[in-house]
Amino acid sequence: MAATDPRVVREQIRMGKWRRPTAGLAPGYVQANLVILPCELAYDFLLFAQRNPKPCPVLEVTEVGSPEPILSAPGADLRKDLPRYRIFREGRLAEETTDLVEIWAPHLVAFLLGCSFSFESALLRAGVPVRHLEEGKNVPMFTTSLPCVPAGVFQGPQVVSMRPIPAPLVARAVQVSGRFPAVHGAPIHIGDPGGIGIRDLERPDFGEAVSIRPGEVPVFWACGVTPQAVALQAKPPLMITHAPGHMFITDLRDESLAAL
Amino acid sequence: MAATDPRVVREQIRMGKWRRPTAGLAPGYVQANLVILPCELAYDFLLFAQRNPKPCPVLEVTEVGSPEPILSAPGADLRKDLPRYRIFREGRLAEETTDLVEIWAPHLVAFLLGCSFSFESALLRAGVPVRHLEEGKNVPMFTTSLPCVPAGVFQGPQVVSMRPIPAPLVARAVQVSGRFPAVHGAPIHIGDPGGIGIRDLERPDFGEAVSIRPGEVPVFWACGVTPQAVALQAKPPLMITHAPGHMFITDLRDESLAAL
Repeated sequence: MAATDPRVVREQIRMGKWRRPTAGLAPGYVQANLVILPCELAYDFLLFAQRNPKPCPVLEVTEVGSPEPILSAPGADLRKDLPRYRIFREGRLAEETTDLVEIWAPHLVAFLLGCSFSFESALLRAGVPVRHLEEGKNVPMFTTSLPCVPAGVFQGPQVVSMRPIPAPLVARAVQVSGRFPAVHGAPIHIGDPGGIGIRDLERPDFGEAVSIRPGEVPVFWACGVTPQAVALQAKPPLMITHAPGHMFITDLRDESLAAL
Repeated sequence: MAATDPRVVREQIRMGKWRRPTAGLAPGYVQANLVILPCELAYDFLLFAQRNPKPCPVLEVTEVGSPEPILSAPGADLRKDLPRYRIFREGRLAEETTDLVEIWAPHLVAFLLGCSFSFESALLRAGVPVRHLEEGKNVPMFTTSLPCVPAGVFQGPQVVSMRPIPAPLVARAVQVSGRFPAVHGAPIHIGDPGGIGIRDLERPDFGEAVSIRPGEVPVFWACGVTPQAVALQAKPPLMITHAPGHMFITDLRDESLAAL
């Protein structure tokens, strides 16, 4: 699919013509993580995000019962415009599906959260290599010993993604990603995996291991898997997310998320 | 009061030994706007802040019923540690008071919001003059024609503060304040007051007019009066704020709010 307009891409997805991951679609536009929860949990989840902005950068929260993200993609429909969803009941994966028309209900609230695609393209433009992209893998992610600040029923450890960066480019990677606080911002840890409770970089908790070359430093960013992991620990009666890699494509340009 | 430790300053205030505005106290530490609302309105207000981060930069939200800001000033008591409060009922000022011990209730939630003191001290350190401080006045504030993004019962226009800046220093003022997104960040408008619905810079809606000299440009920042004005329009049964200028002094250093 060569479409570059996010509206066209979403229409293709809505019509069932694209069921694969969204990486590379509508380049330059912000892609978002999706978390849908019953409205009884919305305040706690929004407060959790406010207290943990690096792993949980909220791009938009829909009105209760509305599947339309009127700020980031007016006219879109979060029940149909992602290629694949995961439905969790009581914290356990119940099924995967390609639309939410049947399951959507008036008490649901959708949260769109920033994802690392936006800062990865900024890293590449700045000449900073991104290893898992080079190796055609999913980014390696690790559960750390750093706790999130709890809010209501939500609590749990921070999850980080790791990218090995050549030592002379680490400062540039900090500066470039730091311009994007709405998509995790600057790294939360540089070097010394043990310092945040990571024992073995070869064995990520999520995603896949990547090669680390001599002279490279492991750099750790807050990761959007954190809010999903934390929400699941609270075992909500119903929670819906995007399937990994199958993101929501907004009308926002990556550059619109740069710090102002 | 020469105290520079925020804990000491709060203790003096708590004991009734300081009843005046807090500007200049505990220099280098973040001072915050206070808004207290019934918990039924807390989700809408937090969502309003999420949708309008420049006028409503949330520093902390207390647990329902707790007057302790455990993240920004553990051990402090928001019922006693500000020199003066305003109590609004159904959107109207009912009284001013020096403590909230009698009125505090288990259904109240306190919001601490960033205030411009932090970026003003950064402007001064960068050699950018701040006219209302030079003239010993309250900053001039104007209701604009720019609407906030509504959330639930909360809606209304953005309020801005205005500082006249010499033309060669406008860019520096943008860069310095832009480092502090948690205290309103970069200006939202530079020059042309009419473009945001301001008719007369001599007649601010709040605060006091300041002199604008030849070669100076009026620069407009999002203002913490916005959430108070918007909340009052919704006529909540009870709402409590700090009295103007009588802020809450946190344990956070101004520099800790710099964008990361």
